[in-house]
Amino acid sequence: MNLSAHILKIAKAARKASYTFALVSSKEKNAALKAMAAALVKNQAYLIKENAKDLKAASGEGYSKALVDRLTLNPKNIKAMADSLVETSKLKDPVGELLETIKRPNGLLIKKVRVPLGVVGIIYESRPNVTSDCAGLCLKSGNAAILKGGKEAIHSNKAIFKILKSVLAKTKIPLDALQLIESTDRQAVHELLKLDQLVDVIVPRGGEELIRFVAANTKIPVVKHFQGICHVYVSKNADLEMASDIVINAKTQKPGVCNAMETLLVDRKVARDFLPSMIVDLQARGCEIRGDEATRALVKGGVNKATEQDWRTEYLDLILSVKVVDGLTEAIEHINTYGSHHSDAIITKNKKEAQAFLDSVDSACVYVNASTRFTDGFEFGFGSEVGISTDKLHVRGPMALEGLTSYKYEVYGSGQIRG
Amino acid sequence: MNLSAHILKIAKAARKASYTFALVSSKEKNAALKAMAAALVKNQAYLIKENAKDLKAASGEGYSKALVDRLTLNPKNIKAMADSLVETSKLKDPVGELLETIKRPNGLLIKKVRVPLGVVGIIYESRPNVTSDCAGLCLKSGNAAILKGGKEAIHSNKAIFKILKSVLAKTKIPLDALQLIESTDRQAVHELLKLDQLVDVIVPRGGEELIRFVAANTKIPVVKHFQGICHVYVSKNADLEMASDIVINAKTQKPGVCNAMETLLVDRKVARDFLPSMIVDLQARGCEIRGDEATRALVKGGVNKATEQDWRTEYLDLILSVKVVDGLTEAIEHINTYGSHHSDAIITKNKKEAQAFLDSVDSACVYVNASTRFTDGFEFGFGSEVGISTDKLHVRGPMALEGLTSYKYEVYGSGQIRG
Repeated sequence: MNLSAHILKIAKAARKASYTFALVSSKEKNAALKAMAAALVKNQAYLIKENAKDLKAASGEGYSKALVDRLTLNPKNIKAMADSLVETSKLKDPVGELLETIKRPNGLLIKKVRVPLGVVGIIYESRPNVTSDCAGLCLKSGNAAILKGGKEAIHSNKAIFKILKSVLAKTKIPLDALQLIESTDRQAVHELLKLDQLVDVIVPRGGEELIRFVAANTKIPVVKHFQGICHVYVSKNADLEMASDIVINAKTQKPGVCNAMETLLVDRKVARDFLPSMIVDLQARGCEIRGDEATRALVKGGVNKATEQDWRTEYLDLILSVKVVDGLTEAIEHINTYGSHHSDAIITKNKKEAQAFLDSVDSACVYVNASTRFTDGFEFGFGSEVGISTDKLHVRGPMALEGLTSYKYEVYGSGQIRG
Repeated sequence: MNLSAHILKIAKAARKASYTFALVSSKEKNAALKAMAAALVKNQAYLIKENAKDLKAASGEGYSKALVDRLTLNPKNIKAMADSLVETSKLKDPVGELLETIKRPNGLLIKKVRVPLGVVGIIYESRPNVTSDCAGLCLKSGNAAILKGGKEAIHSNKAIFKILKSVLAKTKIPLDALQLIESTDRQAVHELLKLDQLVDVIVPRGGEELIRFVAANTKIPVVKHFQGICHVYVSKNADLEMASDIVINAKTQKPGVCNAMETLLVDRKVARDFLPSMIVDLQARGCEIRGDEATRALVKGGVNKATEQDWRTEYLDLILSVKVVDGLTEAIEHINTYGSHHSDAIITKNKKEAQAFLDSVDSACVYVNASTRFTDGFEFGFGSEVGISTDKLHVRGPMALEGLTSYKYEVYGSGQIRG
C-alpha cells in the first residue's frame, strides 16, 4: 500500500471509530486511562530499551544536549507520563455536559450538549511523552486521535503506542480510536493535512516553522500559536521588589519556552529607580539586554541598542528587549501592536490600573502581579494540554479537555412544524 | 487611493476601534441599538427612495421575482429591521460574562471572561436587511463590523449604513466600529480576505459558490456551512400522521433554504403503510420524487430513479430523494455518510430510539418529532443570526451573540513565580 492510501486508511478508521467512541461512558474511559498508566510503568524496561535506539541515532546525528534530554525516557519520566494519565482520568468528563436549555413558546425543548470534536490530529516534535499525554486527553474527551511524532522519537513513540493499544484492546473503546502514523517520511504529514473531510482539527506542537508549515498546507482547522512574545509591564505603582522577582522568573527560569518574557516595559516614573539594578542582575544571570534610548541613557554601557525588529522578536533565549514608556496607555499600545497575544503581565498595586490592563490587552492570558510562565494546562488545573492557542476562535490559551469538544443542539418536539 | 489601500484603511480603522469598543457598557450599546431602530423607521422614505435605484437596476438585469422580493424595502420590512434591532438590544450582553473561576493551590485566581472577537467581516448577497441585522449583532457583542453586501443592493445598503452611522456618531461607540465596503468591485472582497492580521473572522452568507470562494481564498477563520442536506427519518415507531405533517413542512414550506429536507428515510417495516400516500401527497404539491428501488417498487409509476449522486445533492427545490432503510442503524449511517451535518430529524414515539438517534447523528442540530425548518437563530431564541455553522470548531448551528465572542484568562496574583 502506498503512503497516501495508508494515511487515508488510518484516517477513515479513526473517523469510523469516533462515531461509536462518542457513546463510551466516563467510567469505561477512566478505567482505560488508569490501565494505560499501569501498563507504561509495568513495561518500563521495554520502553527504555526502545528509547535507547532513538538516543543512539540522536548521538549519531550530533543533536544538542537539550534535544537529547527531551528525548530520553527513564523510570522517573515514565512515572510522570503514567501520573499524567491518572490525573486526566480524575478530571471531569466534558462529554455530555448540558451547556444550555432553551424552552421555546411553541413547546420545543432545545438542549445544547457538549460532544467530542471527532477526529483530532496532533503533529509534534521530539518529546515522546506527548504521545501518551495527548492520547490521554483525546481518549478522555471521546475523540479519536491520530498522532504523528518526530522521527527522532520514532522507536519510543511506537513502543508507547504499542503498550497503550494493548490496553485499549481490553476495553470498550474502539481500537481504531488511537492511531499513530509510523512513517517518518515528511510526505506522511502532507497526506494527513489533505484529509479535511475526515479530520476535525489539527494541533501542531513544536517550533514556529512546523506550525507555519501546517497552517499553510491544510484546510483542516488548526489550533496554534506561532510565537510567544510575552511582556511584563512595571507600572509606577509597582512593588519594585516583586517586579524584580517576576522579571527574573519570567525571563530566566526557562527562556526557551513560549510563555517566557521577551520584552520588559517600564514606566518612565520608576525607570531610574528600577532599571539599573534590574539590568545588572539580569546580566549577572547571563542575559543580554537590548534597550531603547531611554534605557541606554539610564544604564551606562553593556546595553545593546534595540531595533524596531527587537520588539517583534521571540528570542527563546537569554536575551531581553527593554523599553521605557510613558504610562499605562503606551504600555497597552505597545503590547497590542508588537505582541503575539499570548501572555502579558502588569506589576502594580493599583487595582483600577490592573483592571484597565486586563480589559485592554488583547491576549489569551493577562496577568496582574504574577509571572507569565504560568500559562500552561497543568498550571491552570487542566491536567495537561494538547497545545496553546493565540487564536480567538474556538479555544484561547491552554487547550485541554474542553478545547477538544464541540456541542450539538438536541431539539425535542411533539410534532412542531414551522408556520 | 487605490482599492487595496482603501480596504486596508477600513480594516485598520475597525481594528483600532475594536480595542476601545470592547470597553463600552451594555447600557450604551443597547441605547445605540434602539436609537438606530428609531432612525430606520423615521427615515423610511429615504430608504425606499434609495432602494428604488436598486430595484430599477434589477429590473434592467432581468433578475428573478424571488431576488427582487428579497431586495425590496417597504414600510413593513423596514419596521421588521427596526424590530430586530430592538429585540437584539433586549438580549443579554455576552461581553464580560464570567465563564469560570479557578483557584490554584499557589494562590493564583484565574477568571475566564467572555470578550468580543474583535473585528468581524460579513460578506453577503442581495438582502439589505442583513446590513442592519449583522450591524446590530456585532455592535451588541462589542465587535467592530466590516460589512460587504451584494452589488444588487448597493444603494439600499449605503442608505441603511448612513442612517446607522449618523446614530453612532451620537454615542460612545467608536464611529469606526461600523464599516461598509461600498466598492462593488469583486476585487474588494479579495483585498479584505488578505487581511488576516486585522480581521478575526469572516462570515460568508449566501450560496454555496460564494462560501466556497471565501473559504478557498483566505487565511482568516471562516464560519460557514456549504450545504444543508437535511434528512427526516420515519421510524417503525413513528406516529405516521405526525410524520406526514413534518415531511410536508420540512420539504415544501420553503424549499429554497438550507434547513429544508432533501432526503426522506423510511423504515422498511412501515414503508408500505406510509410511503404510497405520502408520495401522492407530495406530488400533488408539485414535488418531484426520486426513489431507491424499494420505494419505486411500492409506488407504481411517477417516481424517478435516485442515483448515488442524489443522496449527496442539496436540491433547494421541490425535489425529494427517498430511501427505504432497515432500521435505525442504517438511517444513522446514511445520514452521517451523505449528509452535511446541518439538521436531521427522527420521527418516533420510542424515547430510547430517539436518544440513540440524537447521540449518534453527527449534525449541528438533531431533532425528535419536529421539522428541520426550525434551525434558525430567531427560532432558537437568539434574536437573529449572522450565519449557520456546520463546522465543529468555535460555533455550531445558528451563530449569534455568543458565537461572536471569545474569552480571555485574567490571572490575579500576589507575586507568584514559577518554581
